[in-house]
Amino acid sequence: MNPIESTWRGETSVGDLGEFGLIARIRERIGAAGGALVLGLGDDAALLSVPAGWDFALTCDMQLEGRHFSRRWMTPKEVGARAATVNLSDAAAMGAVPVAALVSLGLPPALPVAVTDALYDGLLAALTPHGVALAGGNITAAESLIVDVTLAARVEAGRALRRAGARAGDVVFVTGYPGCAAAGLATLEAEDALWARLAERAGRAAGDLRARFRLHHAAPVARVAAGRFLVENEAATAAIDSSDGLGGDLAHIAEESGVRIELQETFLPVDPILIELGALVGTDPLAWVLGASDDYELIFTAPRAKADLVLAMGEALRLPVAPIGEVVAGAPGVELRRADGTRAAVTGGWDHLRSGS
Amino acid sequence: MNPIESTWRGETSVGDLGEFGLIARIRERIGAAGGALVLGLGDDAALLSVPAGWDFALTCDMQLEGRHFSRRWMTPKEVGARAATVNLSDAAAMGAVPVAALVSLGLPPALPVAVTDALYDGLLAALTPHGVALAGGNITAAESLIVDVTLAARVEAGRALRRAGARAGDVVFVTGYPGCAAAGLATLEAEDALWARLAERAGRAAGDLRARFRLHHAAPVARVAAGRFLVENEAATAAIDSSDGLGGDLAHIAEESGVRIELQETFLPVDPILIELGALVGTDPLAWVLGASDDYELIFTAPRAKADLVLAMGEALRLPVAPIGEVVAGAPGVELRRADGTRAAVTGGWDHLRSGS
Repeated sequence: MNPIESTWRGETSVGDLGEFGLIARIRERIGAAGGALVLGLGDDAALLSVPAGWDFALTCDMQLEGRHFSRRWMTPKEVGARAATVNLSDAAAMGAVPVAALVSLGLPPALPVAVTDALYDGLLAALTPHGVALAGGNITAAESLIVDVTLAARVEAGRALRRAGARAGDVVFVTGYPGCAAAGLATLEAEDALWARLAERAGRAAGDLRARFRLHHAAPVARVAAGRFLVENEAATAAIDSSDGLGGDLAHIAEESGVRIELQETFLPVDPILIELGALVGTDPLAWVLGASDDYELIFTAPRAKADLVLAMGEALRLPVAPIGEVVAGAPGVELRRADGTRAAVTGGWDHLRSGS
Repeated sequence: MNPIESTWRGETSVGDLGEFGLIARIRERIGAAGGALVLGLGDDAALLSVPAGWDFALTCDMQLEGRHFSRRWMTPKEVGARAATVNLSDAAAMGAVPVAALVSLGLPPALPVAVTDALYDGLLAALTPHGVALAGGNITAAESLIVDVTLAARVEAGRALRRAGARAGDVVFVTGYPGCAAAGLATLEAEDALWARLAERAGRAAGDLRARFRLHHAAPVARVAAGRFLVENEAATAAIDSSDGLGGDLAHIAEESGVRIELQETFLPVDPILIELGALVGTDPLAWVLGASDDYELIFTAPRAKADLVLAMGEALRLPVAPIGEVVAGAPGVELRRADGTRAAVTGGWDHLRSGS
């Protein structure tokens, strides 16, 4: 048993405790309602107050054991935090202020209570810094662990960042280093020798690199502050989070906005370690950067006149923000201008029904 | 294969269609956003407008194949409608106006597209009469079908019906005939001979009775109009829906309100067929009426001065509403006064982690 697997063990099971014992335990862990949350856990529904002039944004995302996570490589706390973060990322991509979350759990009755405790610790660790209340949810028995989080957020009426809205002449931006989560997932079960060789090439410690890449996949960060900056400064014309991969998600913006997107290969932010890692495992790092990868970075388009403001945002938030291409008129799609001057169509992205996850 | 099982068949699978093909198909089925729904399916989150002076109620409920439904005894359209109804029932129990729903689906890739079509037909059949928009959701591959619906509703600030609020002297009411769903579930796979004997005793057609009891379980109705009547007329002090069973849900009201509830056996609405059925299968019909049963009836307490108004509501909505007992001071709990003058503690209700469903 590796150290991560051992975080899934415990004496008492949730079946021993029972549904209502577990709900009482969760209520205690979460604390009382307050702020925008008028009524929290323990009634037929949660109640939220909404300030006048704001719309409500609603999103949900389901994480399944054996598909989105495994007890071999994610701790229960990480599963909880990640289930919250993928929804926070959707709020970020709308430029919304996250307010409250519901958690629908499917629990194997033999699951240790220590695991649900850690799961809620993770949910709270991700939600609390954003002022988000855990407002309620639902518990049922299941064959394997299911964590479905619904997030409610608020955004000034008429000002949410949509996928539609990109216009010819806009600059395309992305935060962070897309592709790292895909590389992290691909190397979760890589052998020690790979990390040793990578560490040698990169002049880093093997354990550090291994831990870092696992965290790219297991502990993504939602770009909530960036989304809010873009709304408050009316700096973006369209936005999406990179949950399906940079290429696939840009294709969603292109499709919904009815525009063409031209990426510049030389502008793409490629983590230098990805180049070393790609050379070792025989993968073109661009396949990670553009392909299916659940990084939860923010992809957005902004008018050229706002480009300096966007770059200033990156400095203010200490967040890498790269201009990676531009929006042009033409048939909806995404194209890559290679460093050698050739062009290539960018396809792909993650299909949850075809890709098996 | 029985007629219900055949409703799960079809040529093309959702895996053939792919996630984005399926989303496009669902968008077409649902239609454009409108009303309170500012932005529907197809972006990072749905956007809802909320009128000033109203709070937002949020609830979710997850239905799992093999636990909450089986392809042997529910059609995909019924699964969709029921997944919506159990959430509408939570809105009803808050006295809220349902507004929009999100649907998180876990789909086996081999599932026929005809099944997801029927599932959405069922969702829309349950939601549309209440003016509820299908606003978005999430799709992922899964081993077996998972349908998790989140419902957003609105209710006048400060006027939602909570579980806490019952006061000594209040009358306890329930709509409909609780216990029928439990009896329906218990007899889903009963043999033809049982139905023939029951039909003979009840002077009814066996097929009709069998169909009726299956529908009590498979096609419950949410008491949304009753919930709204109670809020608009400030007629109730506390409310809950009977999703876990009359006894168990009354215990929730007693616990949250800090009161004791005394039920009168002779006042309990017992469907006459339950008495016949109980005699045939050797079950005390009161065990169905008071025990675990997912009927989605409305249970509420009202000041004695509002009792006539409550009974008038029943007539106006053509909904059976029965006064079944009263709220008294004392240690929180539920007690039954038997017809013979003896008293019995009412315990039970459904524990989703212990009862295996």
